[in-house]
Amino acid sequence: IQILPLSFLSAADQAFVTLATTEDYCMGALVMGKSLRRHGTTRKIVVLISSSVSPEQLNSLHKRVFDEVVQVDVMDSMDRTHLSWLGRPELGVTLTKLQCWMLIKYKKCVFLDADTLVLQNVDDLFEREELSAAPDAGWPDCFNSGVFVFRPSLHTHSRLLAHAAHYGCFDGGDQGLLNSFFKDWAVKDISKHLPFVYNLSSSAIYTYLPAFQTFGHQAKIVHFLGAVKPWHLRYDQSNKDSYLDQFLNMWWAEYRSQMPPISGEVDGNQDSGDMLHVSMKPSRHLNINTETAEESLHHRRMWEKGHVDYMGKDSFENIKKKLDIFLD
Amino acid sequence: IQILPLSFLSAADQAFVTLATTEDYCMGALVMGKSLRRHGTTRKIVVLISSSVSPEQLNSLHKRVFDEVVQVDVMDSMDRTHLSWLGRPELGVTLTKLQCWMLIKYKKCVFLDADTLVLQNVDDLFEREELSAAPDAGWPDCFNSGVFVFRPSLHTHSRLLAHAAHYGCFDGGDQGLLNSFFKDWAVKDISKHLPFVYNLSSSAIYTYLPAFQTFGHQAKIVHFLGAVKPWHLRYDQSNKDSYLDQFLNMWWAEYRSQMPPISGEVDGNQDSGDMLHVSMKPSRHLNINTETAEESLHHRRMWEKGHVDYMGKDSFENIKKKLDIFLD
Repeated sequence: IQILPLSFLSAADQAFVTLATTEDYCMGALVMGKSLRRHGTTRKIVVLISSSVSPEQLNSLHKRVFDEVVQVDVMDSMDRTHLSWLGRPELGVTLTKLQCWMLIKYKKCVFLDADTLVLQNVDDLFEREELSAAPDAGWPDCFNSGVFVFRPSLHTHSRLLAHAAHYGCFDGGDQGLLNSFFKDWAVKDISKHLPFVYNLSSSAIYTYLPAFQTFGHQAKIVHFLGAVKPWHLRYDQSNKDSYLDQFLNMWWAEYRSQMPPISGEVDGNQDSGDMLHVSMKPSRHLNINTETAEESLHHRRMWEKGHVDYMGKDSFENIKKKLDIFLD
Repeated sequence: IQILPLSFLSAADQAFVTLATTEDYCMGALVMGKSLRRHGTTRKIVVLISSSVSPEQLNSLHKRVFDEVVQVDVMDSMDRTHLSWLGRPELGVTLTKLQCWMLIKYKKCVFLDADTLVLQNVDDLFEREELSAAPDAGWPDCFNSGVFVFRPSLHTHSRLLAHAAHYGCFDGGDQGLLNSFFKDWAVKDISKHLPFVYNLSSSAIYTYLPAFQTFGHQAKIVHFLGAVKPWHLRYDQSNKDSYLDQFLNMWWAEYRSQMPPISGEVDGNQDSGDMLHVSMKPSRHLNINTETAEESLHHRRMWEKGHVDYMGKDSFENIKKKLDIFLD
């Protein structure tokens, strides 16, 4: 008789789930999945992909990182449940994320946004119940929907759709809808509050730096919130000025790394680097506009902290140069 | 036999407590206390004041708003408990706040920072246990120490001092120390998590505006976090552009309002407006620097939201004018 730990026994019906609706988010999903593998997850990894993602991308993702690829496209569905939605196209992306509740071949799942990066093994998340999530730093009585534990269920899926139809979602995204549906989260059960280090928004580095310096080393999942994503930024290993640079470099290191052998896969063409060829678009990702985005992010943070660099980046000459580019 | 509600019976040994260490913070404490009275608290209101506050200020506060004024000055104390501190002057202000645990004539207290404003009756806070507080929006696994429920106790006070002596405080303030002492807050007991609307940081308006628009009307206490306080800003009732303007105007309206009669006080010279004369310093508070501070705040928020007003406030001409003033 072989005695297996509970975590191993339950691995087959438990999965991490992510969602990629564009090619950029496929890059993110890939990196997130690789980071899960790197830290030795025993669970399945599933990606939901919309029809706008190319078959090549899908295929590559499938082979290398994901146990399962599920194509979803809510707004094209013409069944009765979805028909009631067709008058509200703004809920399209939100509804796509809700499709994760339809993965009923799994008993319990953890959803991870494609703009997250796993820094440590987080299989312990499967000990939590639906709906477990970490507080959102912007309004901490809401949970952030970038990382959450859920139980796939067609019944819950229908109720979520009905709730959305009736109440809409206050922020136009899945986070508002899920918070409105799981509205007791803030007050009912502390075990459903994931520690913030399971969904550490990159902006928290700046909003309470002493806390980041004290607790940041416990970070398990970092979440690149906001409009500027790692895939918009230049990969430069020498950029280690800020904590954010370090996380960005970890993201890029994961992106460029070779894949570790996946269980059941014969170690073969591990050095082909085809991931890189499939997704990386140097001409698009490394151009001047993305450098401006990176500069802008750092610059804004300094500005927020009251460090206005009047003689340097914020000098008239430099501001003028930038404006000339914008206005040309 | 007269049957009294529990809340009335316990009112005599329960108090709201605040702290004022400068004249500016006395303005804040006054407004906070007035806002508690306005919303009909049945509890005592106590202010801790450092020796740097003038007797006139003290007297005025005492008569009008506070049931008790307690002068504290930790760093001058030469008793054994405090002696161990003299090598760490940076903990001075932090230690002053901890003195609230010495108010042992009260069984339970609610501490409110002097830069808070009460918008509704919050006597229900006394139903909570030590240590209850709301999450800090900057790092939501820490509580914000601007509003918290505690039980005065010399034993706890000593343990807090010993903890500070041994571990210091990670952010140099009382919040770091209290979070390190009450370190189970994030994971242990949901009833000790005050809803965020009991300590709504004014910056949360901007960090997750849809949540503010959805839940902001439930706000019970607003907390003017950050370097720019209401007493630095110009009072202008016509400024109602932003949610923050509305809170600022409420603060100033409270500041300028006449006091409602306090229980036991004969309604007398209610219209003298001496509060205004005692604390308001138009020449200091309404000068050009404070207008710059207000502009800077709003401007920064717009910048954060990506609305750079290249042709208006952010035009070269205007930036240059400001810089000329700074650089002159």
